[in-house]
Amino acid sequence: MMKLYGYWRSSSSYRVRIALALKAIEVTHIPVNLREGAQRSDMHRARNPQGFVPVLELDDGMQLTQSLAIIDYVDRAFPETKLIPVDPIKRARVMAASLVIATDIQPIQNLAVLKYLRAELGQGDKAINSWAHDWIFEGLSSLESILKQQCAGPFFMGNAPGLFECCLIPQVYNAGRFGVDMSAFPILQAIDKAASTIPEFMEAAPENQIDAIS
Amino acid sequence: MMKLYGYWRSSSSYRVRIALALKAIEVTHIPVNLREGAQRSDMHRARNPQGFVPVLELDDGMQLTQSLAIIDYVDRAFPETKLIPVDPIKRARVMAASLVIATDIQPIQNLAVLKYLRAELGQGDKAINSWAHDWIFEGLSSLESILKQQCAGPFFMGNAPGLFECCLIPQVYNAGRFGVDMSAFPILQAIDKAASTIPEFMEAAPENQIDAIS
Repeated sequence: MMKLYGYWRSSSSYRVRIALALKAIEVTHIPVNLREGAQRSDMHRARNPQGFVPVLELDDGMQLTQSLAIIDYVDRAFPETKLIPVDPIKRARVMAASLVIATDIQPIQNLAVLKYLRAELGQGDKAINSWAHDWIFEGLSSLESILKQQCAGPFFMGNAPGLFECCLIPQVYNAGRFGVDMSAFPILQAIDKAASTIPEFMEAAPENQIDAIS
Repeated sequence: MMKLYGYWRSSSSYRVRIALALKAIEVTHIPVNLREGAQRSDMHRARNPQGFVPVLELDDGMQLTQSLAIIDYVDRAFPETKLIPVDPIKRARVMAASLVIATDIQPIQNLAVLKYLRAELGQGDKAINSWAHDWIFEGLSSLESILKQQCAGPFFMGNAPGLFECCLIPQVYNAGRFGVDMSAFPILQAIDKAASTIPEFMEAAPENQIDAIS
């Protein structure tokens, strides 16, 4: 069985968990404790020199990194329940909207950046929370405008969730941690609400992972 | 003819310029002056609500955003000179290494983030330059370790440059702007050097664009 090295609160891990659940692919979940720095251990660096989660280990031992590359891989290797559309324009749109989250929102509010703000720039809780809040708010505002033009509903591409929802729902989870008012983004909020009732999304949620701490 | 809205020094525009040149796709280049804030104009927001470059406008007027989604689109629409491998594992590796740049390096050192550090957090030139330098250095260190295991040479996937080089060469350009010593990364430096002699990379370089300012 494939192994997924991840962390309950890592939003990149959460993306891959949703994708695997939607495709009904069972994996062994192996927690890497980011709070204790296990991602920087030699053992984890051997899996991923970047020291990040998630890492998907295939049956033959091959290890894949970067959530979007992992999702792209499993979407091809296991063609049932496609997460990325085949139609070229739909595909370009789903990828672009997913990349807004993966490149322009999440990396700027992730733990490593917030730690740098504190340790190197001497920023306190208030400035750090505002930083995360502001970047998430601005990114989600852009996404809301994009989806106003393109969203089919109830999900981005219609009746079934896919790559975009794999990225959005973890980002909404992070938005909640930093007090972003999602009512400013009615389309995104509706997608999040629609996803929240789907068992695969519940199964992938941080609080339902074996390493979750309440 | 397709139109590419971009900016000479934007590294995301630069990525797409390299991809188009490698695939011998001619486009009309339309500069969007980021220094004058043209990306925030209503006219540009109509092309891309995020207010970012690049935007690729297809012959039918359809507008595509996000550099990696654009490159993925053109690589399928124009199959000659593939930039992304077809083999699943090679594909996953090229995408993962490209995403290290596109998600974990470039967004954290881009202009909008540096402006926030100055305007909202009161940071000066020294701290801002260190910020950009440190994130680029850390990201390139990870990449160097990844490529030590995976790089075929002279390019990541062998004799021909592709998606990874579309991302790497603009990132090395940015590294130069922030004084990152590339000799710490011999594999990346060798790829950059190999690319620098290829006419398509020269054609796409910032200094050779119509809107370049010396």
